[in-house]
Amino acid sequence: MAGKEVYLDNSAATRLDERVLEAMKPCFFENYAVATSEFGYSQGLEARELLGEARGRIAAFLGAAPEEFIFTSGSTESSNLALKGVAKALGGKKGKHIIVSRIEDFPVLHSAQALEKQGFEVDYLEVDGQGFVRLDRLKELLREDTILVSVQHGNQEIGTVQDIQAIGEICREKGVLFHTDATHTFTRIPLDVRDIHVDLVTVSAHTIHGPKGIGGLYVRKGTSIAKVTDGGYQEFDLRPGIENIPGAVGFAEAVGLVSEEENGRLKSLRNAIIGAVFERIPLVTLNGDAESRLPQNANITFHLVEGESVTLHLDMYGIAVSTGSACFSRSLEASHVIMAIGGDHERAHGSIRFTFGRYNTMEEVDRVVDALARIITELRKISPLGKTGGVQDGISL
Amino acid sequence: MAGKEVYLDNSAATRLDERVLEAMKPCFFENYAVATSEFGYSQGLEARELLGEARGRIAAFLGAAPEEFIFTSGSTESSNLALKGVAKALGGKKGKHIIVSRIEDFPVLHSAQALEKQGFEVDYLEVDGQGFVRLDRLKELLREDTILVSVQHGNQEIGTVQDIQAIGEICREKGVLFHTDATHTFTRIPLDVRDIHVDLVTVSAHTIHGPKGIGGLYVRKGTSIAKVTDGGYQEFDLRPGIENIPGAVGFAEAVGLVSEEENGRLKSLRNAIIGAVFERIPLVTLNGDAESRLPQNANITFHLVEGESVTLHLDMYGIAVSTGSACFSRSLEASHVIMAIGGDHERAHGSIRFTFGRYNTMEEVDRVVDALARIITELRKISPLGKTGGVQDGISL
Repeated sequence: MAGKEVYLDNSAATRLDERVLEAMKPCFFENYAVATSEFGYSQGLEARELLGEARGRIAAFLGAAPEEFIFTSGSTESSNLALKGVAKALGGKKGKHIIVSRIEDFPVLHSAQALEKQGFEVDYLEVDGQGFVRLDRLKELLREDTILVSVQHGNQEIGTVQDIQAIGEICREKGVLFHTDATHTFTRIPLDVRDIHVDLVTVSAHTIHGPKGIGGLYVRKGTSIAKVTDGGYQEFDLRPGIENIPGAVGFAEAVGLVSEEENGRLKSLRNAIIGAVFERIPLVTLNGDAESRLPQNANITFHLVEGESVTLHLDMYGIAVSTGSACFSRSLEASHVIMAIGGDHERAHGSIRFTFGRYNTMEEVDRVVDALARIITELRKISPLGKTGGVQDGISL
Repeated sequence: MAGKEVYLDNSAATRLDERVLEAMKPCFFENYAVATSEFGYSQGLEARELLGEARGRIAAFLGAAPEEFIFTSGSTESSNLALKGVAKALGGKKGKHIIVSRIEDFPVLHSAQALEKQGFEVDYLEVDGQGFVRLDRLKELLREDTILVSVQHGNQEIGTVQDIQAIGEICREKGVLFHTDATHTFTRIPLDVRDIHVDLVTVSAHTIHGPKGIGGLYVRKGTSIAKVTDGGYQEFDLRPGIENIPGAVGFAEAVGLVSEEENGRLKSLRNAIIGAVFERIPLVTLNGDAESRLPQNANITFHLVEGESVTLHLDMYGIAVSTGSACFSRSLEASHVIMAIGGDHERAHGSIRFTFGRYNTMEEVDRVVDALARIITELRKISPLGKTGGVQDGISL
C-alpha cells in the first residue's frame, strides 16, 4: 500500500523491552535445550516447563486453556495455519466456502486467494466508510457450506476495531468457525474467548515490544484444523519445528508488561496527534473510526500532498517513517484498505499512519505535529495536486 | 524415534554463544525497525542494511550470492518450502515424481508424504548399512517426470555424511533439481554451491550456537519454486512475514564463529568417546559411518539394554540426555533411520546419540564414558534381554 507509517522517534514504538530480554536470557544459556523429550532429561524437562509456563501465561490472557494456544513464528504463519488448516480439515467435508473481510492484512487476504486457486470459493465482505464490516451482509453471505469466517480484530492501517462479539455470535448461530487476526489488538483491546465466540485468534509478540520471530494461534478446543507444515510433532502436533523457547518466554513477558495504564497513555498520544493535526492543518481526513480504534494508531490523509514526500521530509527531521505497510514493499500500489473504505488514489497516497509504543512521549507528538505543519504547508505550495482540486474537506474530531 | 540423545554437560552442546547475543543486541534496541520499506525512513534503511549484511555473510559461506539466500523460521520451514515450493512450481508442468532418501529427517520425510496425498508420486531411496544412499538405485529411479531429489547432507541420528557431490552430478545430468537438508552439516562440513550441484539447501542457526527461530534456504538462481506461505512480499517474495532481523544477525554471527579448529576439536571429542566406549564396553555397535560422519555426532547401540534406562541413569549422574530425536516426541516408535540401515527394534531401542558442541571438553567425555561403563554393566546384570540372546557383536573401530 502507499500509506506511510510514522514510528514516533527512533524505534520507540517498536523496540524490544529490556525486561523481555532479561526474561529470555536464562533460556539462551542455562536452559537452551530441546523441549520435546518425553522422559528423563532434567534439562529438557526444565525447558519444557519454561515453555509450558509461557504458553499458560499467554493463554490465560486470552481466557484460554494452555493446550488451546500454540506458538508459531509470527502472525503470518498463524493466519496461514488458521485459514489453510481449517480448509484442509473441512474442505473435503463440510464445504469450500470462506468469508474474509476486504480489509484483512495480507496473510489472511493472500491465504484466501491461494485457497481460491485450490477450488475454494471466497466472499470478500464489504466494509463501510469507517472500515466496519457490514454485519447484515455477513448474514446474507453465510451458507450451508461456509467453513470459516475471518475478520480481523483491529485494522493494520486505519486502526478500526471490529465488533467481533457480534460477528462471533452470527458465526456461532450458523455453526461456522470464526478466525480473527488480533495482531494489532492483542493486549491493547480486551479479547476473552470465554466472552467472545471466536475459534481461532492470531497474535504476535513484536507488536508489543516482544521478540521478533515468535507469534501464536489460539485454537478453541475441538476446532477442526489440520497442520499445514510437515515435520515433527511439536505444539500438539499442529506446528512442527524445534520450539523457540527464548522467544516464547519473551513473548509471555511482553504480554505481562502491557498495562491498562499504558493503553490509556497510548490513547492519549493518539488523540493528541489527531487533535493537533486537525487544529493546525487544513484539508485532512481521519481514516478509520474515531472511537472504536486501536489505541496506538492514527491514520490521516493530508490532501493535496503525496505521503511519500511528507515522509521523506519527516525523515530529515529525524522522525522515523516507514513507507508501505509492514507486509508490503510494493508501495506504488494504492492501499486496499483505503480503497475499500471508499477512498480514491489521491486519498490513499496522501495517507500517513502514526504508530505509538511504550517509549513514545507527548513531546514527540508536539515535535511531529510542528514538523508536519511546516512540511505540509511547504509541499502544498509546490503541489501539482493543489491546482486540480476535487478534494474532500478534512473531518474535524 | 527411540534413539536417545546425550548432550554432554548442561547445554554445552547447544546453548547460545554470548557473542551471538552481543551481536543481536543493537537490533533489539536501536534498530528494531521493519526492513521492508522501499523509500525514505533512515531507520528502516539501517535495518535493511543489517539484514542484507547478515544475508550476504551466510550466502558467502555457501559460495552463493546474497539474493540466493532467504531467511525462514528454521529448518522445518526451509525444507517444507523446498519440497512443496518446487512441487507447486513444477507439479503442473514437468511432472509429479519426487525422490527422497529413507533416512531424511521429518520435515523432508513428512512433506514428501503430504505431497503423496496431493497426488505426487514419491520414491523412498534405500540406504546401505552405513546409511549411504545407493547411487546406482538413484540413477534407476530418476525419470522424465522427476522434479526433485531430496537427500540430506548429514544424518540427524547416525551422523553419516552423504556424497552430495556425486548425487548432485547425477541430478544435474538428468536436469533434476536437488535439495539437501544441511541442518547438521552447515559450517561443520564444507558445502560450496559453486563446487557442488545443489539447487536448494536447508540450514539452521540453533545447531551452531545461534538463536532459535531462525533458519534459511539457499535457492540457486533460476530454480523453479513457488512460495507456500501467503502474506507480504518479503524475502524476494518467497517467505512472507516481518523480518526477524535480530535472528538473522545472530545467525550470521554464529556462522562466523565456527572455525576449522573447532570442527577438528569436535571430531577429537567424537573419536574419543567412540574409542573409549569400544575399549571399555563390550557388545556395542557404532551406528553410521566411522569416517564420513558429522564431527559432532556419535551414535552407539549398547546391546542388551534399553536406551531409555541408560539415559535415565545418565541423567542421575547429571549428564543431559534427550529421549527421542529433536523432532519427535513419540519415542516408543523405533527409529526409522536405524531400521533403514538394517537394524532391528533391539538395536534401535538400545541406541544413544551423543551430540557435541563448542563448550564440551575431553573431561566430560571421560566422565560420560565412566558413567556409561558402570551403568551398562549394572543394567545388563538385570536385563531380561541378556537372557534371550540373538545379539550382534559390537563393531570395534
